[in-house]
Amino acid sequence: MANLMKPVFAAVSVIVFSAGIAAAQQGSDQAKIKKVLTTYETALNASDTGAIMKLYADDGVFMPQHSPSQVGADAVREAYEHVFEAITLDIEFEIVEILQVAPDWAFARTNSSGLVKINTTGDGASEGNQELFVFRKRDDGEWKIARYIFSTTSPRPR
Amino acid sequence: MANLMKPVFAAVSVIVFSAGIAAAQQGSDQAKIKKVLTTYETALNASDTGAIMKLYADDGVFMPQHSPSQVGADAVREAYEHVFEAITLDIEFEIVEILQVAPDWAFARTNSSGLVKINTTGDGASEGNQELFVFRKRDDGEWKIARYIFSTTSPRPR
Repeated sequence: MANLMKPVFAAVSVIVFSAGIAAAQQGSDQAKIKKVLTTYETALNASDTGAIMKLYADDGVFMPQHSPSQVGADAVREAYEHVFEAITLDIEFEIVEILQVAPDWAFARTNSSGLVKINTTGDGASEGNQELFVFRKRDDGEWKIARYIFSTTSPRPR
Repeated sequence: MANLMKPVFAAVSVIVFSAGIAAAQQGSDQAKIKKVLTTYETALNASDTGAIMKLYADDGVFMPQHSPSQVGADAVREAYEHVFEAITLDIEFEIVEILQVAPDWAFARTNSSGLVKINTTGDGASEGNQELFVFRKRDDGEWKIARYIFSTTSPRPR
């Protein structure tokens, strides 16, 4: 009996140990994804396309309001350059949820609010948006933005 | 040697067989998710909130442009009722990608275009949007909309 039980205990220990590693890994993944979001906020407010591009997957998709979806790094970069030519942002993100659904996939839902300045006129306005991010973990352990879409939460102008 | 090899062949057969099942299951999941999207298109064009609610997870989130995120079935239902009071849609969805990232999670990216009629005035206009859906598979094998956001692809009005 003792001999039969030993492998069972060993197997259970391995499972419990693995679950511990998995939980710790997931905590670390959450922290990394949160860091991507806060870095994105900082980069947006600095109109820093270079810093934003480091957060995107090479085949990432940016889906900005009032524009067709921008697929792949070159298109994404051009879209952000276009945005930062037009406006300067001073906004804050509130992270509503980060949900890791697979070892290398997660999504996050956020709200953002703050000020937008039209660069050509200097006019400012308040701005509110909701965002949905899909993240993919690369082989090197870094989480990157795979898909990203936002839309305004402000009422339709009448 | 023959005796040693037998279990190996058996194990390999099991793995190949499992992979076959997994591939077939994934094909079936893709088909089910595609069906949710086409049913959603039909329900939108019929202004049928009841049909739409059957496609959403109980804790689903609808993130309509010009509105805060609507969390949970009651809020989602109310938002669609509000939409269908205001407008009547005649649109088509183009599915750009459906990506299953875990046994019970997937996301889809689509484009939609067509006509929107303002119910109070009868005025019509063309409309183009991009959409990002997150789907979750329920225990009963049905895929439901867990998160859904869209934004217009039309240029900003000047």
